[in-house]
Amino acid sequence: MMAEESALAPTDKNVAQSMIGFGKRLEIAVREKKNPVCVGLDPRIGSLPDVIRSAFGDSATDQAAAFEKFCVEILDAVCDLVPIVKPQAAFFEELGPAGCVALERVVRYATQLGLLVVMDAKRGDIGTTAAAYANAYLGSGPVGAPNYSPWGADALTVNPFLGADTLEPFGERCYSTGSGLFVLVKTSNPGSGFVQDIATENGSIAESIAIHVQTETDRYRGSDHFGPIGAVVGATYPEQLAKMRALMPNAWILIPGYGAQGGSAQSVRVGMDEQGLGAIVNNSRGIIFAHQQLRFQASTWTRSVRDATSAMIEDLAV
Amino acid sequence: MMAEESALAPTDKNVAQSMIGFGKRLEIAVREKKNPVCVGLDPRIGSLPDVIRSAFGDSATDQAAAFEKFCVEILDAVCDLVPIVKPQAAFFEELGPAGCVALERVVRYATQLGLLVVMDAKRGDIGTTAAAYANAYLGSGPVGAPNYSPWGADALTVNPFLGADTLEPFGERCYSTGSGLFVLVKTSNPGSGFVQDIATENGSIAESIAIHVQTETDRYRGSDHFGPIGAVVGATYPEQLAKMRALMPNAWILIPGYGAQGGSAQSVRVGMDEQGLGAIVNNSRGIIFAHQQLRFQASTWTRSVRDATSAMIEDLAV
Repeated sequence: MMAEESALAPTDKNVAQSMIGFGKRLEIAVREKKNPVCVGLDPRIGSLPDVIRSAFGDSATDQAAAFEKFCVEILDAVCDLVPIVKPQAAFFEELGPAGCVALERVVRYATQLGLLVVMDAKRGDIGTTAAAYANAYLGSGPVGAPNYSPWGADALTVNPFLGADTLEPFGERCYSTGSGLFVLVKTSNPGSGFVQDIATENGSIAESIAIHVQTETDRYRGSDHFGPIGAVVGATYPEQLAKMRALMPNAWILIPGYGAQGGSAQSVRVGMDEQGLGAIVNNSRGIIFAHQQLRFQASTWTRSVRDATSAMIEDLAV
Repeated sequence: MMAEESALAPTDKNVAQSMIGFGKRLEIAVREKKNPVCVGLDPRIGSLPDVIRSAFGDSATDQAAAFEKFCVEILDAVCDLVPIVKPQAAFFEELGPAGCVALERVVRYATQLGLLVVMDAKRGDIGTTAAAYANAYLGSGPVGAPNYSPWGADALTVNPFLGADTLEPFGERCYSTGSGLFVLVKTSNPGSGFVQDIATENGSIAESIAIHVQTETDRYRGSDHFGPIGAVVGATYPEQLAKMRALMPNAWILIPGYGAQGGSAQSVRVGMDEQGLGAIVNNSRGIIFAHQQLRFQASTWTRSVRDATSAMIEDLAV
């Protein structure tokens, strides 16, 4: 399987040369579904549909079971429509260990349905600790496979604040398991400039990280157009997004901030390349809580989810 | 309980005015134990003492049980010696949900023994997601108490890359639960300068974050000398550590990098104030895997742990 395409890849030990890289896998999935929509799985107890909420009690274990049921039904509703989903680890961790059990089950179920999964956990640490996070999350294969990981994700969001050296163990794990990273470059929140907009010799901090992402994704991509190392750039900063697209021609960009945070279809389009590829656009609340929106009222809440997903796909296609 | 000391505190809703702040609680603990040693709980399967390793199987659940047993015995061995311990979330997460169950149990056990617990999870995200992480980890009270949290830690390490606004939900949670933060300022790894050493109008990025930490800890500290918002500054950069001490007179500094990473007693001493307070010094491998070191060979591995802890306390006291 494409072993010949890995000729330019690093000479690390234990690499699975036959593994299709994440950049390629995401490209295949986006081409197949013909859209770049990423459904964000951000369950909140207070926003669950009544039919789910009323079926479970109030203990952490019950709430975690409700989260799992909620996410499983969303996955069933969108799996034929979109290429990738993004569980937000924080909302599961908020329920303690019970939430973690539910999170892992949701990831496995998404994989069974043929969806790619990016775990939004924004991990980052040094040396062997970074390697532990990489081992924990990166790899969606079955137990015993070289690309098995306990949490089973295809990709992970990571935080570059600790330094480029701290991204190395993640990159190596991506290469050996066909997994991917989305490195935080320019986040969607109002205060993201605090660190990210500071000027360096290579443009802003965000730009210098983008340059590093391009170097790394190029290093691992072999003859694939897109490598495994991607970036997070918010839809709320369209001018920077356009610049980031140019700085990272071989990196996938995960774009948060569409919809609820104010990013429009026009503002995310600058994150795509001339083929309309290279970016996935996340929407969490706008899809998973669509039952709360008048325009998506329907006979069932999962119908609302599906309608909201279709509406976003159409919005981005125009 | 010291409600009058909170007169300068913010006027947020739902604050527990009677809660003793984390800065004060840590000061009390350090004064009582007469040393600033933080024992890092970084379990690795390959480094466990044979007596532990051989008692458990190879499944993730078995390995998690081994981690729990290992940490519980360490806690028993050091609880009368040190003020605080620091579990590294990554090594537990590496075992998947089973590891998370063990992590929570280890934290609760440490609390039962009267130890403070800083969860080293380096979390960071925006808005409601940051609030979810804060709710998840910050608060060591029993179920039902206002300072209960599912993971039960007294403090959490957080990553400031996403911006000062993203630290707000953590700060508010600290204030309402008597918990604390250690914001990454200057990490101990060789490549930490990549982002942290970039120059800004207020010194380096690390220094500008330190200034922000001081502002925030001052905002929440009331009449306590030390507020709840602290910083992480590595022992491997003693010159910067001295500067950071001066920039954050009211912040606790968590110093990693002593021992295995090369930091000496002399290099961490510059992180203390003139009273010898204001910093806690972490040691993970040097203590928990002391049974592997010739100088700490003893009749039992927990004796080695205790001897290594005592040796570090002595080293720092000289």
